[in-house]
This record gives sequence, C-alpha cells and structure tokens, in this order.
Amino acid sequence: MRAQTIHHIGHAVDDLDAAIADYQQLLGGVLEHREAVPDQGVEAATMLLGDGRVELLRPLGDDTPVGKFLQNRGPGMHHMALRVDDIEQALADAASAGAELIDQQPRVGLFGLRVAFIHPHSVHGVLVELVQPANEGTGHG
Amino acid sequence: MRAQTIHHIGHAVDDLDAAIADYQQLLGGVLEHREAVPDQGVEAATMLLGDGRVELLRPLGDDTPVGKFLQNRGPGMHHMALRVDDIEQALADAASAGAELIDQQPRVGLFGLRVAFIHPHSVHGVLVELVQPANEGTGHG
Repeated sequence: MRAQTIHHIGHAVDDLDAAIADYQQLLGGVLEHREAVPDQGVEAATMLLGDGRVELLRPLGDDTPVGKFLQNRGPGMHHMALRVDDIEQALADAASAGAELIDQQPRVGLFGLRVAFIHPHSVHGVLVELVQPANEGTGHG
Repeated sequence: MRAQTIHHIGHAVDDLDAAIADYQQLLGGVLEHREAVPDQGVEAATMLLGDGRVELLRPLGDDTPVGKFLQNRGPGMHHMALRVDDIEQALADAASAGAELIDQQPRVGLFGLRVAFIHPHSVHGVLVELVQPANEGTGHG
C-alpha cells in the first residue's frame, strides 16, 4: 500500500474541553471540527497544528473502546491514521502482506471519513487507521 | 507557539529490524535514516509514509528512557513531534502559556535535529517534542 501522509494522530483524553483549550493555548492548535458520535461511543474534536492534525477522543462511557483504553493506559496517544487515496486497495495490499485487519471493509468513521483499522498486533503495538476522505477515490474496490 | 506540521510520530519497538521490515511490507514505508546514538540510549530509524514520518526507537538498554517505557507500557506510540521554525520562540511561548518543559533550552537530538521536549503532564499524557531542522531558524533566541 502507499500512504499519502499522516492524516491525524488520535489522542484519548478524559476532559475534551480542557484538552481543546490546552492544545489551543500551549501548542497553538486550531479547532477544526467537533462532534459527538454516540454509536461509536465518543465525542471527538480535531485540532490543526499547522498542516498536522490531532483527533481528540473522549469516551461517552467506560464500556466503549476509548473508555477501556483510558482505564487501561490513561490519557495518551491512541492511534496513528494514514491518509490513502484508495482505501480498498490499501486494505487489500495490507492484508496480502500479512496485516491483521480489524475492518475487512471500509466503514464510515468520524466526520464522514471512510476508515478501516489494522490491528496493533501487526504494527508493533500501534493501532493504525487508514483514512480516505469521503469525496475522493477511484471508484473501484 | 505555531507549529508547521507533525514532524514525526515516535514509536518504541523491541526489534528494530522487524519493525523496519513491517513498515516497509505492510504500510509501504521507506527507510529514511538509521542511526545508533549510545549517549541517548537508542538505535533509531525514520520511516517515510508518503509525506509523513515515523521514528522507530529501540532502546540500547533497560535503564534508558525508551527501555523504561517499553517495560512499563510495551511497544507502541511514544511521542508526537511538531516541526517549528523557531524552537527558542516556541519553547518560550509554550512556557509562558503554562507548559511544563523537560528541556529549558533546545539540544541536539537524533539525526542532528534541534529538539526540546514538553512534559506529558501538560498535554494530557502525550510527550511532545518540538523539532527544528538544524539548517533553519531565525538566529535569535
């Protein structure tokens, strides 16, 4: 597969308002989007750091993926998202190279992005998200 | 402070050769640099993922910062590095906004970069590195 760039770094937090404020004040971040997605168990906000992006994730309950992560590890970096221009091809390439896929097919993630996750077992402990912005793609797959 | 972009994501690993191979084969990564830096206790390799970059870090001993991280947390994301064009100004801005600095002054990091770290206590559990490539800067500070 071929990645275009790092789309964002996912960062799990306890307090989304405080995290947004700290990214703004300490790091010069600019709020891009904010959205609660109950069926994914999170409230999320994206912060732009120049051309870079961090996705802040606050769990909506303890029994959610991000809630379990916070209980086990505490706040911190949660996943690395790579932007690809053809997510079906990228998933097929990763699978054929031996990656363990969490999502066999792309699904709609936060902010309408087309996403799929690769298991951290395959990437030395890093949960990898593939992201294709919804208005892009080659149409095959 | 103002960041230009995400310079890299730092990723702590047990086995650098295996990690390089997996980034190449599973994610299409391209090896950029590889270097052992005994006085920092690490062997490091940077992998390009399109315009993005991951810095793989293997500790040279258990009693090193990355060695302790691995013992406590296992392999995974270790830090987020932001590229700035004036690291002295960025450090001063972050400190005046209340950030706890690990490095009061920039120092020479891996690959000759000028770097300084902000404590994860200030950034909701994320260790933040500021990076200014060595051949850039405004000269003040």
